[in-house]
Amino acid sequence: MAAAAPPLKDELDIVIPTIRNLDFLEMWRPFFQPYHLIIVQDGDPSKTIKVPDGFDYELYNRNDINKILGPRSSCISFKDSACRCFGYMVSKKKYIFTIDDDCFVANDPSGKQINALEQHIKNLLCPSTPLFFNTLYDPFREGADFVRGYPFSLREGVPTAVSHGLWLNIPDYDAPTQLVKPHERNSRYVDAVLTIPKGTLFPMCGMNLAFDRDLIGPAMYFGLMGDGQPIGRYDDMWAGWCIKVICDHLGLGVKTGLPYIWHSKASNPFVNLKKEYKGIFWQEEIIPFFQSATLSKDSTTVQKCYLELSKQVEEKLGKVDPYFVKLADAMETWIQAWDELNPTKAN
Amino acid sequence: MAAAAPPLKDELDIVIPTIRNLDFLEMWRPFFQPYHLIIVQDGDPSKTIKVPDGFDYELYNRNDINKILGPRSSCISFKDSACRCFGYMVSKKKYIFTIDDDCFVANDPSGKQINALEQHIKNLLCPSTPLFFNTLYDPFREGADFVRGYPFSLREGVPTAVSHGLWLNIPDYDAPTQLVKPHERNSRYVDAVLTIPKGTLFPMCGMNLAFDRDLIGPAMYFGLMGDGQPIGRYDDMWAGWCIKVICDHLGLGVKTGLPYIWHSKASNPFVNLKKEYKGIFWQEEIIPFFQSATLSKDSTTVQKCYLELSKQVEEKLGKVDPYFVKLADAMETWIQAWDELNPTKAN
Repeated sequence: MAAAAPPLKDELDIVIPTIRNLDFLEMWRPFFQPYHLIIVQDGDPSKTIKVPDGFDYELYNRNDINKILGPRSSCISFKDSACRCFGYMVSKKKYIFTIDDDCFVANDPSGKQINALEQHIKNLLCPSTPLFFNTLYDPFREGADFVRGYPFSLREGVPTAVSHGLWLNIPDYDAPTQLVKPHERNSRYVDAVLTIPKGTLFPMCGMNLAFDRDLIGPAMYFGLMGDGQPIGRYDDMWAGWCIKVICDHLGLGVKTGLPYIWHSKASNPFVNLKKEYKGIFWQEEIIPFFQSATLSKDSTTVQKCYLELSKQVEEKLGKVDPYFVKLADAMETWIQAWDELNPTKAN
Repeated sequence: MAAAAPPLKDELDIVIPTIRNLDFLEMWRPFFQPYHLIIVQDGDPSKTIKVPDGFDYELYNRNDINKILGPRSSCISFKDSACRCFGYMVSKKKYIFTIDDDCFVANDPSGKQINALEQHIKNLLCPSTPLFFNTLYDPFREGADFVRGYPFSLREGVPTAVSHGLWLNIPDYDAPTQLVKPHERNSRYVDAVLTIPKGTLFPMCGMNLAFDRDLIGPAMYFGLMGDGQPIGRYDDMWAGWCIKVICDHLGLGVKTGLPYIWHSKASNPFVNLKKEYKGIFWQEEIIPFFQSATLSKDSTTVQKCYLELSKQVEEKLGKVDPYFVKLADAMETWIQAWDELNPTKAN
């Protein structure tokens, strides 16, 4: 039952948001060099970002984004790693892997370097099982299967749309937890991949994430964060809540667990607290909203689902803060921009 | 945040269903000897079961069960390990750990013997988080916490009612999988404990299981299996579906993952197929039934929940097969017997 992991060299782009020279790619060279990179340069567009020799890449700075999207560029965040979703939009490949530039190759417990990309491909190419929990984790991994009592009618699974990888060393904590536990490091290697059950939300981190652009791409919008916005560091969370509701509605799967990357450096908790501050309050209302969100039968495509969700955001979260009215509007703009750049995939 | 694991020597019973001498206890001696054992002897009551010296135990055979429960003994299965639930009923302790007599002490990857009971106690004593998924698994384990994006209002968690442990070596497969993969062994040690999300069912295995009797005991009924019944090997599954619906309703948690035991011997797949045969069909209707089961606000205790569920079983699954009418009746009998033996806990 183990899924083979063909390298998918012509079917996958690696998207990297950055404000600095991409020296971190040296360590990833054996794994990433065969792939095409889409670099989304954040911040000052006049700055030159150096990319190590030998990588095949395209790079977009803010001027490029403005030129390509025109007035619709307003939906792409500035001075926040949320800008990475522009890369998802301009890619023409079926799969996307996105990684932060402070993430390095991790070792498994035997000391072997982990090929994160290969594991993400494995995760995406074998089905998910969101309708019933399998206690031996991913039943499609080598040496595993469905356990006694797992209904046979559900063993075909559903297509996997998202593969969420984890982090050794610096865990992905919020500012309050960073402040309280400045020394905590994640050293536990959990050798598991599992499907997040239908109806359950999760905190999706954009640091080490892969997805099937054809299945879920138009919902992978990282929202309005950073410059000119009242909030930051909720870009990937926002996308995670949206994609989970839509995957559940469309019968698609989300996996989490392997692969690990090595997260090298904790961001500044004081800066983070400032960015997260409103999000910490808002998420107490956002999460019940997404937990109870339902989509209509007419929403049969990701685009239709996303537009329906944007209307619900405006209507229900608009009461929490006017920011959400602006965000709902940006969600629509995002879909318009997506469809313009991806005409054959438009609905 | 790591939970201490006090040994709870006066608060925990170990329940073992068996038809043979309990030589397997020798290997468990350092871990089990401080505890009281409740041995439920299945099959021929005239046979003498030998228990290694030094263990504190009480033993019940079929004659004892009949004498204690009178006509209500009909709810306790015969010639099936489902009989173990009689032990839950006669215990007077807060916690139960139940284990099969072909399960031995497993080693962790460092080669250290795993104290399964200690890990179960840890699992039961720290909260569960069924309302939102934490990607770093149990946030209450040492070196772990809630990740960024986890709502703060949900971090208190809910009381843990059930701790479901796993198995190295022989996995808990159904007969068809055993037949197809006779050589498969589970050698993957996954160093994780996680909460099964609210609204998600799972296949609960009775081989290595602990629970809080005060919180969920009256729902831990292993059904009518074995002698005189059309089905076997669904005893723990049945209990698992029932307890999960009730835990979700009452705001209690179910954890799965660590600890591992070493499961020594696969049962005969041909015999198993005969026992499971009807269950394989029936579960295709049973699972949708439990997935959509809801309990009323009036069901505020485990007993009330269980009786409400038994009525729904009769009404909805009775159409599938008359067996379920009989099972629903036995569920009521079980609660009567439970309340009779546990008068202070009755509702």
